[in-house]
Amino acid sequence: MNAPRAESHLLPEVRTRTAPDALLDALRQRFVSQFSTALVIREQHGRDESALSAPPPEAVVFAQSTQDVSDAVKLAAQYQVPVIPFGIGSSLEGHLLAVQGGISIDVSRMNQVLSIHAEDLTVTVQPGVTRKALNEAVKSTGLFFPIDPGADATLGGMSATRASGTNAVRYGTMRENVLALEVVTAQGEVIRTGTRAKKSSAGYDLTRLMVGSEGTLGVITEVTVKLYPLPEAVMAATCSFGSVADAVNATIQIIQMGVPIARCELLDANTVRIVNNYAKLTLPEQAMLLMEFHGSPAGVQEQVDTVQSIASDFGGKTFEWAATPEERTRLWTARHNAYFAAIQSRPGCRAISTDTCVPISRLADALLDCVSEANASGIPYFLVGHVGDGNFHMGYLIDPNSPTERDTAEQLNTQLVQRALQLGGTCTGEHGVGLHKIDFLVEEAGIGAIAMMRTIKKALDPDNIMNPGKIFLL
Amino acid sequence: MNAPRAESHLLPEVRTRTAPDALLDALRQRFVSQFSTALVIREQHGRDESALSAPPPEAVVFAQSTQDVSDAVKLAAQYQVPVIPFGIGSSLEGHLLAVQGGISIDVSRMNQVLSIHAEDLTVTVQPGVTRKALNEAVKSTGLFFPIDPGADATLGGMSATRASGTNAVRYGTMRENVLALEVVTAQGEVIRTGTRAKKSSAGYDLTRLMVGSEGTLGVITEVTVKLYPLPEAVMAATCSFGSVADAVNATIQIIQMGVPIARCELLDANTVRIVNNYAKLTLPEQAMLLMEFHGSPAGVQEQVDTVQSIASDFGGKTFEWAATPEERTRLWTARHNAYFAAIQSRPGCRAISTDTCVPISRLADALLDCVSEANASGIPYFLVGHVGDGNFHMGYLIDPNSPTERDTAEQLNTQLVQRALQLGGTCTGEHGVGLHKIDFLVEEAGIGAIAMMRTIKKALDPDNIMNPGKIFLL
Repeated sequence: MNAPRAESHLLPEVRTRTAPDALLDALRQRFVSQFSTALVIREQHGRDESALSAPPPEAVVFAQSTQDVSDAVKLAAQYQVPVIPFGIGSSLEGHLLAVQGGISIDVSRMNQVLSIHAEDLTVTVQPGVTRKALNEAVKSTGLFFPIDPGADATLGGMSATRASGTNAVRYGTMRENVLALEVVTAQGEVIRTGTRAKKSSAGYDLTRLMVGSEGTLGVITEVTVKLYPLPEAVMAATCSFGSVADAVNATIQIIQMGVPIARCELLDANTVRIVNNYAKLTLPEQAMLLMEFHGSPAGVQEQVDTVQSIASDFGGKTFEWAATPEERTRLWTARHNAYFAAIQSRPGCRAISTDTCVPISRLADALLDCVSEANASGIPYFLVGHVGDGNFHMGYLIDPNSPTERDTAEQLNTQLVQRALQLGGTCTGEHGVGLHKIDFLVEEAGIGAIAMMRTIKKALDPDNIMNPGKIFLL
Repeated sequence: MNAPRAESHLLPEVRTRTAPDALLDALRQRFVSQFSTALVIREQHGRDESALSAPPPEAVVFAQSTQDVSDAVKLAAQYQVPVIPFGIGSSLEGHLLAVQGGISIDVSRMNQVLSIHAEDLTVTVQPGVTRKALNEAVKSTGLFFPIDPGADATLGGMSATRASGTNAVRYGTMRENVLALEVVTAQGEVIRTGTRAKKSSAGYDLTRLMVGSEGTLGVITEVTVKLYPLPEAVMAATCSFGSVADAVNATIQIIQMGVPIARCELLDANTVRIVNNYAKLTLPEQAMLLMEFHGSPAGVQEQVDTVQSIASDFGGKTFEWAATPEERTRLWTARHNAYFAAIQSRPGCRAISTDTCVPISRLADALLDCVSEANASGIPYFLVGHVGDGNFHMGYLIDPNSPTERDTAEQLNTQLVQRALQLGGTCTGEHGVGLHKIDFLVEEAGIGAIAMMRTIKKALDPDNIMNPGKIFLL
């Protein structure tokens, strides 16, 4: 996060709408010490984990309540100035960049767990609660919240980007796990979507319209999600393969057999090496699946036997076990740190991360050619994947000051996305569209579906003040 | 379905928009033998399984392709005449009634299974394919489609109402199981939403906006859904309890323990009696759970042991097994026929069916008072429930010619819904809003959320021609 920032040439047309002094004065008066125009604060709120950059927002409001968010939006709306919700800054797609100017609304102080309904397997939180804080808060109930995008992201941000991660193959994504939301609309009104009932046919699914809307339709101020009983037994293992192809083909068969595996992650040999260096591990430097199994002791054993047998058919070695909770944590921490390990492996670099997801049978087709192309390009990269879902990430580690490297990486990314789309997949499995995939989304969804999205956006946010410039251009 | 029809006093304000001769002529010319204005055909398309009635649509188009649907919508749009999609007519909420006049678009001839991707666990069908036809088509692949609302509904209709049913407790609802759609918009344009990838963060979730939109935003012309490997072992059992309360409390604990039960259905003693009479069964005439367990043989045995132990704690008897596939089919057919059995138990009656769903811990609170109130009212009723999801149905069996009985049933329904809403639940778990729950939806969602739904509707269908008068009034 201290890597040098380069000017991006990827940003869409910027139509900066300057916040007038009258607005800044009104915000200062309303929010006093919860308001800042200090450059360092603005810069912190004007960037994320992507390689994109833009001038920072003109001010930051530190909201502490739904009322704060509503008041900030109402004031901004008066002057038709953009508002950009900010959780913890872990976006990989430029969601937080003030590409059209505007005010950042930081919800990280809205970090209360509001109500744990252990008896219903639900919990309601403010949007600034992170997934780790949530799991800490519910630990004593014997329940857990499985969605794990790697970063300790906020529940608000995870909802807004329809996040998922390592556990999604078993437990689904934010799409499946958000039951209800409170949202501040573009008019500053507070609405509620959904209820705590497990299912409902009550009108339009506004909850799922908001989940994945990337702050462009409203600011999420409360999130109700499902919890799950902690599994009686948990086992984690690594399995090394002679090639990425073997690991991928084993994964395809595991999923086709319906094994309820909880995590099934791929690292290529190069990425294992990076992770070993960073985390002082001694994992065999071969293509590897990191797996986790949840269930009853007997159920877990059944899954393990099935998966070991499939892996062996593809030349996979005998599983190496991470038997204790501490060893498991070490292993998954290493996996989650792959991104940071990769960044450190090339000092000063930035990562351009891909995020395609394809139907499981097409995973080998989608992935193997990308690896060949990356190797041929000479750009350093890492490869990790939630392969049980058909989702993987190539991270091209570019010198941000080298236009050539950036162009090459973008070219690789374009080939990779177009291949995924041809195979019936999506340009983004879990990171969102943000600034970087606007054109790919048109290719994927078609102009008719994009027109429908834009019609909805214009109807709900006629002045285009909610995180403008993301998902599509108006 | 041959029960006498009574004039309803429940219909919202009718603003009939008469189809001009020019439109009828143009449709006749375009669709020839696929077009009918015969009264008997129109009447078949102007009613459903609800107790509601309205004058029939003015004409019926039998669409055989997406192009047919598109052309019919475009012609209707020219004259601002409503279109009402029709699958098989199994709605329970008046979705098919031409309350503002218009043309019925019957998609039952669009009944092709377009592509089975067994290797990806997905299938794409035309909207007129029924769930039984779909399962027949995929039988040889070793996969199945689990969503089972009882009626042999079409996939188009199930998508439009966000249907679920007996298997939802394990496999989710149409919300979780539809991957992608093709939709004809209010302008007659054809759009695609979603892909066959298992997850995606690519823009607004139009798929889930359409799922549950009850034909008010577009006509669904293609549906891609998930399939699941047929479980290695399936066991079905019934368990009798001394009271509904005991059966419900056992269910609550089964769910709280995280048992991955595939079906968990409640019938009260009275409904068991009705089912016994209709299906010539000899089930013990007590409150009863009908359960099904899916998994490996060992996994199923574990679930059975856990559930039997919980049931015994609440006075449940030893399970009665439906061991063979034939016995299982007989049992579930009897369950699915509970509605028809109940209708026949009071000749000439119509059923007013409730559909609330509450957080699981509140199920006893939601259900038991309703039973007392129904008993006190003297109106015959049946009680079935997908209780594992907190969803249950009271069916009040009224004489359609008795305004008193109808008023009493509506009063019972109102009390039941308001209780569910107070308990954090929803007015409709799976039937949809249709004509009958418009006011309840306002109570549940609040005027802010309803305003957002209406804004979306008006933006996408400015002339309000797509199944108008359902979900909300404009």
